[in-house]
Amino acid sequence: MGGDLGPAVTVPAIARALLLYPSLSVRAFICGDISAHLAAAGLQQHPRLTLIQAQCTVGMDERPSSALRTKRDSSMGEAVKDVAEGRSQACISAGNTGALMALSRHFLKTLPGIDRPAIVSAMPAVNGKRVYMLDLGANVACDSETLYQFAVMGSAMAHTVEGIDRPRVALLNIGEEEVKGNDQVRHAANLLQDAPSIHYVGYLEGHDIFTNKADVIVCDGFVGNVTLKTCEGIAQFFLAQLRESFGNSLWGRVLGWLVRPFIKAVYARVNPDQYNGASLVGLRGIVVKSHGNAGIDAFFNALEQALHSAERKLPDGIESAIGTVLLDKH
Amino acid sequence: MGGDLGPAVTVPAIARALLLYPSLSVRAFICGDISAHLAAAGLQQHPRLTLIQAQCTVGMDERPSSALRTKRDSSMGEAVKDVAEGRSQACISAGNTGALMALSRHFLKTLPGIDRPAIVSAMPAVNGKRVYMLDLGANVACDSETLYQFAVMGSAMAHTVEGIDRPRVALLNIGEEEVKGNDQVRHAANLLQDAPSIHYVGYLEGHDIFTNKADVIVCDGFVGNVTLKTCEGIAQFFLAQLRESFGNSLWGRVLGWLVRPFIKAVYARVNPDQYNGASLVGLRGIVVKSHGNAGIDAFFNALEQALHSAERKLPDGIESAIGTVLLDKH
Repeated sequence: MGGDLGPAVTVPAIARALLLYPSLSVRAFICGDISAHLAAAGLQQHPRLTLIQAQCTVGMDERPSSALRTKRDSSMGEAVKDVAEGRSQACISAGNTGALMALSRHFLKTLPGIDRPAIVSAMPAVNGKRVYMLDLGANVACDSETLYQFAVMGSAMAHTVEGIDRPRVALLNIGEEEVKGNDQVRHAANLLQDAPSIHYVGYLEGHDIFTNKADVIVCDGFVGNVTLKTCEGIAQFFLAQLRESFGNSLWGRVLGWLVRPFIKAVYARVNPDQYNGASLVGLRGIVVKSHGNAGIDAFFNALEQALHSAERKLPDGIESAIGTVLLDKH
Repeated sequence: MGGDLGPAVTVPAIARALLLYPSLSVRAFICGDISAHLAAAGLQQHPRLTLIQAQCTVGMDERPSSALRTKRDSSMGEAVKDVAEGRSQACISAGNTGALMALSRHFLKTLPGIDRPAIVSAMPAVNGKRVYMLDLGANVACDSETLYQFAVMGSAMAHTVEGIDRPRVALLNIGEEEVKGNDQVRHAANLLQDAPSIHYVGYLEGHDIFTNKADVIVCDGFVGNVTLKTCEGIAQFFLAQLRESFGNSLWGRVLGWLVRPFIKAVYARVNPDQYNGASLVGLRGIVVKSHGNAGIDAFFNALEQALHSAERKLPDGIESAIGTVLLDKH
């Protein structure tokens, strides 16, 4: 039900996923009548689609604490509970991020050794690479131990999902020198240097997020969220400026029309918004958050990400990585 | 002497500024022999250029504390002292930012009511507007009172330098709702709401930095520095992707060659690096920091910015704005 467009986006995306993945079963938690959407997508009677009616939905502006208190039986709450109770292997939602995190922590609990779950997403980088960045907004302030746990989870995710042997892990900082940055980041660097199972490569600055110098970039949720949204903003700004620049002359307008497909393709890679699907990691189960304004393609990407995470047993990978660093320590 | 290229950049930029501004006098603090650069720029015997030999220079990697202890008689230290002692109206440096801040605090002192100076720069926004963003890296952690002081200084700067009547001031945050963000940002919002002389417009997210929703955006130095450098990184990444996309076919290469001037013009606007010249505000004097890798055009921009700040008496504007908010409070 979640997201700006609800079933108008999620139902066609589910139809495509069921078509492309013959072993996939979908349990869709709905609230109210979505039969028109199902009919439009040809999903009235699909053998691998189960519809489950929930009591209510969570509003996009609802506070996480209020959702946790009053909306456990919402479509979102029931979907998370379905994973917690073993009926589903992964949950995908385009709804309220804070509520999804609160309900996920409540029903799924965190993995042993993890204090706070994080939101992680793959950002684009040069040469077609991807870089996992976390936290993207679950934790506005993080101590060094929390940043360290994020590094372990990010490394496990790049290893498990992306198949990278020893993922390069960096801390986002405001300078590359040892003396730069705040206390939390500097202490996290010390912790990471002492962890043989983590391939820590040092500090990275904002301009190197996209240059493939690391596979995992760790920062607190405030910095990560601002960074992610700044990328979105500057990509849109770049496009708007290009449009204006081409629009100033007839020759420019002709050229602008000709280069449209090239620029569109680049924008699709550069705008992190297009890389839809952020994972809530550190939980005893898989939860993927789709962008609220995701279209059908983007929500389908989030579905695929949940599927891959389930196939590769992401929470097991993270749990085992945490076990290893704990053994390292003692 | 500062910056990656030193006098090879600064001397030609000074030559251009002396030519364009007949009332400008330049006092250049050098160390060693720069006569070849002066000759190349036709500046051997200029009536409005004074050369002053300093004992040493500050290295780009030197720690601020060490520069403050051992490099007060460097070209950078002497230039700042020249402002403090009233012989110059503004200082421009392309050198080590931390050292410049430390020496500026030492020689110039902060304005009454200001605890910590900030680094502020104008970022591009839609419709040819500019937005002043601070702090960009001088203070890695800021309490709410410091953020509040940044807001007052940024507002005074947009008013004094840009001539905006009641500059719209926003706090950078990870959500637009009241409940979002960390404690410092939320408390700073309360302080700003209670300051009638500040036109506070609320929270702004990363994707709205460039949409002209505010004239001043306030954040701590860690977030600001990462944001600025992320903009630089994504602009370069966008360009690299465009180049790759055009390079894939003959038609693409022809088109790419044709659109080059359009894209170059846009890149020059989008990349904050091109908007050279960051002001150190909150001091009893004008200090402008040029990017270390600035070229001649960029360093000239920094010179112009110092000149405008001096003409418009920026420190007086900030001091009077602080006086007003202090009166507001009592």
